[in-house]
Amino acid sequence: MKSCWIDGQPATGLPVDDRGLAYGDGLFETIKVVRGKPQLLERHLQRLDEGCRRLAIPLDLPLVRAELLAFCGELDTGVAKLTVTRGAGRRGYAPPHPCSPRRLLLGSSLPAYPVQNGQTGVRLFPCATRLAEQPLLAGLKHLNRLEQVLARAEWQDSAYAEGLMRDSSGRVIEGVFSNLFIVRDGVLLTAALQRCGVAGVMRAELIECAQQLGVAVVERDLTYEELLAADEVLLCNSLYGIWPVVALAGHTWPVGVLTRKLQAAIADLSSVS
Amino acid sequence: MKSCWIDGQPATGLPVDDRGLAYGDGLFETIKVVRGKPQLLERHLQRLDEGCRRLAIPLDLPLVRAELLAFCGELDTGVAKLTVTRGAGRRGYAPPHPCSPRRLLLGSSLPAYPVQNGQTGVRLFPCATRLAEQPLLAGLKHLNRLEQVLARAEWQDSAYAEGLMRDSSGRVIEGVFSNLFIVRDGVLLTAALQRCGVAGVMRAELIECAQQLGVAVVERDLTYEELLAADEVLLCNSLYGIWPVVALAGHTWPVGVLTRKLQAAIADLSSVS
Repeated sequence: MKSCWIDGQPATGLPVDDRGLAYGDGLFETIKVVRGKPQLLERHLQRLDEGCRRLAIPLDLPLVRAELLAFCGELDTGVAKLTVTRGAGRRGYAPPHPCSPRRLLLGSSLPAYPVQNGQTGVRLFPCATRLAEQPLLAGLKHLNRLEQVLARAEWQDSAYAEGLMRDSSGRVIEGVFSNLFIVRDGVLLTAALQRCGVAGVMRAELIECAQQLGVAVVERDLTYEELLAADEVLLCNSLYGIWPVVALAGHTWPVGVLTRKLQAAIADLSSVS
Repeated sequence: MKSCWIDGQPATGLPVDDRGLAYGDGLFETIKVVRGKPQLLERHLQRLDEGCRRLAIPLDLPLVRAELLAFCGELDTGVAKLTVTRGAGRRGYAPPHPCSPRRLLLGSSLPAYPVQNGQTGVRLFPCATRLAEQPLLAGLKHLNRLEQVLARAEWQDSAYAEGLMRDSSGRVIEGVFSNLFIVRDGVLLTAALQRCGVAGVMRAELIECAQQLGVAVVERDLTYEELLAADEVLLCNSLYGIWPVVALAGHTWPVGVLTRKLQAAIADLSSVS
């Protein structure tokens, strides 16, 4: 299953002068779609809107929303990848004034992750690729993703479902395609994202969920030692929800009580949405 | 004038599942073409080859060369932008095995830079955007160029022909679309590019040219204070050659003797190639 719309019309090719290709000058959202309904829709649109604001890409949010909903209706169940680029450009980095951002929608089937990932937990590969520290781009789901490409290329062994990414100072940040949380003494902690990392929509959802369950959530710098000393470790993203982490480089963690509680809360949520 | 080939065939659209768009997973070369001949051809191909090796993109260099030469013959005089991406990909960062890299050639006219830039010199805009330090990508002309987009968007005033980019530690690195050299006591210095920056082909050409003129060239970390204290400052890239830098944030430099000598050497070179 592969369908594609560009600017609301079925399309197969992106104009070759698009700045999304030339410079990675754009943003994307990877959205789970169940029976025509995009999950966590408002969070995805809000992050996209915020990203466009930070990159000074003018976004027609009502139009994006309408196109996305129509696209998801046709897709029914699967993944809708929504990309917004700054659109066509002449040669050179200077953003065109005025610019006409381009909207791409690409449909695919749901990824076939092993169901055990969520049940018995996953092993993390310790990626050597570090995340560079760039406050101007931190948190954004932009199209400059070579670090993730390099990190994901570090392992082929399917025994590792994800990889751990640290920043160039060694802080624990996230997975290659997931956010990471640790639990210590009943508190849920996740990396602050001022210097690098992606502010995932499931990360935001999970933080709110935990707070509603009465769990304290702290966003701050996390050391590798804190990760190793954690009571529980978990990963999340908008497609698979939550995976417990049970092993990394010789260290092991149990699948914890709070992880199970959060999985249940997330599952309840998607059954009512 | 706009012509485009994809994989050796005239084309207008890039397949929407290309990883060049999705992740900036690729590299590019911006090549000056004069009467059908690509300038600094071997340096461009060598850098592309090295970049593909570092990103583990398998490149058919003889094929790329043949297509480029044919494309330049049709273009006659202008700019040939050669982009190599990792090609089509499924959803997810993992590089496909095997992968079929895609070759794009895009033609345009020569940029219309003011001729005074090379004569009386240019003013530099002091960009606030810093280059993040990522050794794995340093030196490469890859498609992850949001830092340059943000830096170039910092000024609209045409009084500034280029902008100065420093790294996150404050070191002087390069221009937004140029490399930068300083002259101090007869020695030519330019930033080492182990942490960030683009290893320009004109930078390499200039280093060799200077050495042939008997000028010592040093690549090392450069501080902002060293830039300000320089006898001469100059910029280079493969399209415009060399521009003297005469002003930055209240500081001024004269157009120096070595800068003129290097301009003459570069001009001689292009008249014989």
